[in-house]
Amino acid sequence: MNPTTSTLVTDLYELTMAQAYLEQGMDGPAVFEFFVRQLPAHRNFLMTAGLEQVLAFLSQLQVTQEELAWLDQSGRFSSELLHFLEALRFTGDVEAMPEGTICFPHEPIIRIVAPLPQAQLVESRVMNLLNFQTMVASKAARSVLVAGGKPLIDFGLRRAHGAEAGLFAARASYLAGFAGTATVLAGMVYGIPLYGTMAHSFVQSHEDEILAFEHFAHTQPDNVVLLIDTYDTETAADKVVVLAKLLKAEGITIKGIRLDSGDLADHARKVRRILDEGGVPQAQILASGNLDEYCVRDLVHSHAPIDSFAVGTAMTTSADAPSLDCAYKLQEYLGRPCRKRSEGKATWPGRKQVYRYHSGDGRLDHDIITTLTDQLPGEPLLQSVMKGGYRVASSPGLAELRDHTAAQLRQLPESLRALEIVPAYDVRISPALQSLAQTVDRSF
Amino acid sequence: MNPTTSTLVTDLYELTMAQAYLEQGMDGPAVFEFFVRQLPAHRNFLMTAGLEQVLAFLSQLQVTQEELAWLDQSGRFSSELLHFLEALRFTGDVEAMPEGTICFPHEPIIRIVAPLPQAQLVESRVMNLLNFQTMVASKAARSVLVAGGKPLIDFGLRRAHGAEAGLFAARASYLAGFAGTATVLAGMVYGIPLYGTMAHSFVQSHEDEILAFEHFAHTQPDNVVLLIDTYDTETAADKVVVLAKLLKAEGITIKGIRLDSGDLADHARKVRRILDEGGVPQAQILASGNLDEYCVRDLVHSHAPIDSFAVGTAMTTSADAPSLDCAYKLQEYLGRPCRKRSEGKATWPGRKQVYRYHSGDGRLDHDIITTLTDQLPGEPLLQSVMKGGYRVASSPGLAELRDHTAAQLRQLPESLRALEIVPAYDVRISPALQSLAQTVDRSF
Repeated sequence: MNPTTSTLVTDLYELTMAQAYLEQGMDGPAVFEFFVRQLPAHRNFLMTAGLEQVLAFLSQLQVTQEELAWLDQSGRFSSELLHFLEALRFTGDVEAMPEGTICFPHEPIIRIVAPLPQAQLVESRVMNLLNFQTMVASKAARSVLVAGGKPLIDFGLRRAHGAEAGLFAARASYLAGFAGTATVLAGMVYGIPLYGTMAHSFVQSHEDEILAFEHFAHTQPDNVVLLIDTYDTETAADKVVVLAKLLKAEGITIKGIRLDSGDLADHARKVRRILDEGGVPQAQILASGNLDEYCVRDLVHSHAPIDSFAVGTAMTTSADAPSLDCAYKLQEYLGRPCRKRSEGKATWPGRKQVYRYHSGDGRLDHDIITTLTDQLPGEPLLQSVMKGGYRVASSPGLAELRDHTAAQLRQLPESLRALEIVPAYDVRISPALQSLAQTVDRSF
Repeated sequence: MNPTTSTLVTDLYELTMAQAYLEQGMDGPAVFEFFVRQLPAHRNFLMTAGLEQVLAFLSQLQVTQEELAWLDQSGRFSSELLHFLEALRFTGDVEAMPEGTICFPHEPIIRIVAPLPQAQLVESRVMNLLNFQTMVASKAARSVLVAGGKPLIDFGLRRAHGAEAGLFAARASYLAGFAGTATVLAGMVYGIPLYGTMAHSFVQSHEDEILAFEHFAHTQPDNVVLLIDTYDTETAADKVVVLAKLLKAEGITIKGIRLDSGDLADHARKVRRILDEGGVPQAQILASGNLDEYCVRDLVHSHAPIDSFAVGTAMTTSADAPSLDCAYKLQEYLGRPCRKRSEGKATWPGRKQVYRYHSGDGRLDHDIITTLTDQLPGEPLLQSVMKGGYRVASSPGLAELRDHTAAQLRQLPESLRALEIVPAYDVRISPALQSLAQTVDRSF
């Protein structure tokens, strides 16, 4: 059983509703859009991610015989629904912002147009996929913005929410501009560069710290990065100096050391001095240990001699905003625009496009959300990515997506690059869309 | 590729260290313990969960031919490591607290004793599995404690961090005392009771709200739970009353309604009155919409006529504490106890047991953490669950585990049941363990 490909990763009501739609012959074209209602705390922008996984999910949508048998024996579902599920393939159209696009609340990130039962059934997993990676990319981009070009590495697997979260967090952070990850499977599946050092247990399993360092160097002569805070950081740095001389005779160079506890800036300065004076100037300093974008910024501002940063739990779990206030809402059925008016949760109706406008220096100036038929000048952000269940182009590689992401980050206005909350970016609702909303409201 | 069963869901350094261990012939017995360093914010206790998935992972530990081929072509690893991985099976012993046990910081939740390269290699995934479910069960238990016996349902899949997180959150919350989940695959895989109603899109896809309700009732005559907040809650309640009369003639009973927005207590009172006066007293009220344990407590205290609660994102992501400060630490190698002394991260050395003591009324009074050889009176919390890679007993079913959990919650002292933070539970370090720590420190 592989939960990451199962169509039953869905809410019960998706099946129940599909059954009702089928019973009523309601299989006309439905239009759903995924968007975020409001920015989470501590965010000035969002960065889209997860589209690739959504398209893979839709392309491979099917229910297995084992799942069908279980649904059947549950006695909950009609034979009509079971037949529908047995034959299920996704046949719809998808328009979306490319992954790595900067976006804002109320802007549709993806639109799915498909027969109603299909478009409804995929809701839970589409949200599950887009919420997580968009949330992580949006968080990771903040570290990228303040790291001053120093490499960032994802160390978050152990506290990611399950295996898939670990894998997706590695992908979303790499997309946002991280240099790589420690998660091996992400290297295999996505080709993301892998980074790693050693654990405290490695040092502890040896009777002597310097012996642990020496063994490690002999095993990984091309990647000697030593963890030096197991007992006393500066004492360990002295040992690294001694070891460096011994290893030099064997042609092995110490590539770096890792600091994982205490006052990282202070330790980095002391250790840098010890290494430089001890003739090990080439050894770089990697900092880790409960880092987030604020720590990274402060360490960079302090001019601490740290060369790279490993960011784990805070980024992987998006600890200060572990979910997005996102929604996947029906915007049109059988050509009739819809609008939800629940208190505090009202939505803009119909198929929409987002147009982006830049200021003279190429930075983002404002966006306009309008109806799809209301064609404006400006850069339209949603593009067709799937037609009739087939992708319109092969999937862009992560290298290409990272170029897009980097360009997007360069276009951020200076104010939005801050970690602190600044006045919201200017997102306008066009007269055409406002008028459509009024028309929809009048029809009730 | 199934990330949920892949041994490559691990950090690069686990492989690197295993290679170094093999090269040095360091495959003696190693003892690792998993524990939480400190309670997260907003928690008075933890509830263990995830052991079943850890044992399944260890039982099935292996590297596939595809993974081996990829590792080989990466050029990073020695042929000795690749041969080790090819033959890899877990042959160690595991002792652990049963799932659903109340526990506290520094108490070992699980101990793994295995040849060093094996015990090291499983670190990342063991932590990944235990961190998430323990975190969710600990959060979910808080809702259970304040719900006054009213059923709680997991609605969190869409904002869970991936598919596995959705599945595990359904399991952990059910273990903690939730009545069920909306996640269909959790019904299939774990036999957890499924609950569901309808989405706003179902109402919107119909031209008229009452028509949507009627269609739903005809499709699900045994489970007519209607979502009434798409447009105007009380107006919709009036429609429910009208519909109830029509359906009665067909022998269909309206089982309930769902409120998902606005002032839930106020809407519940108004809707209850409308339903009661309209002759639909049997229809229950389910509340949902960004609920957490605080909302549940306040709604229960307000005596709002709400019969059950759907709790989603806040519980599934453990939003106020989306990770545990947990560790998997080497405590002994080749019979030599170890201790990490990194600043702010020092650990207690050696193999340990936790003894629990109850007060006269059966409630928890205090715990003592001591060395494994220091046998005390009191209830020992860690039990043998795996020997030589084989489980010592078949896995307990969720029903049995839920009984254990319920008993554990009954044993909570009144003060620890509060949602607010209270003075910490009394966890003592025995003289024997303190003495061992001093001995270990002196050896450096």
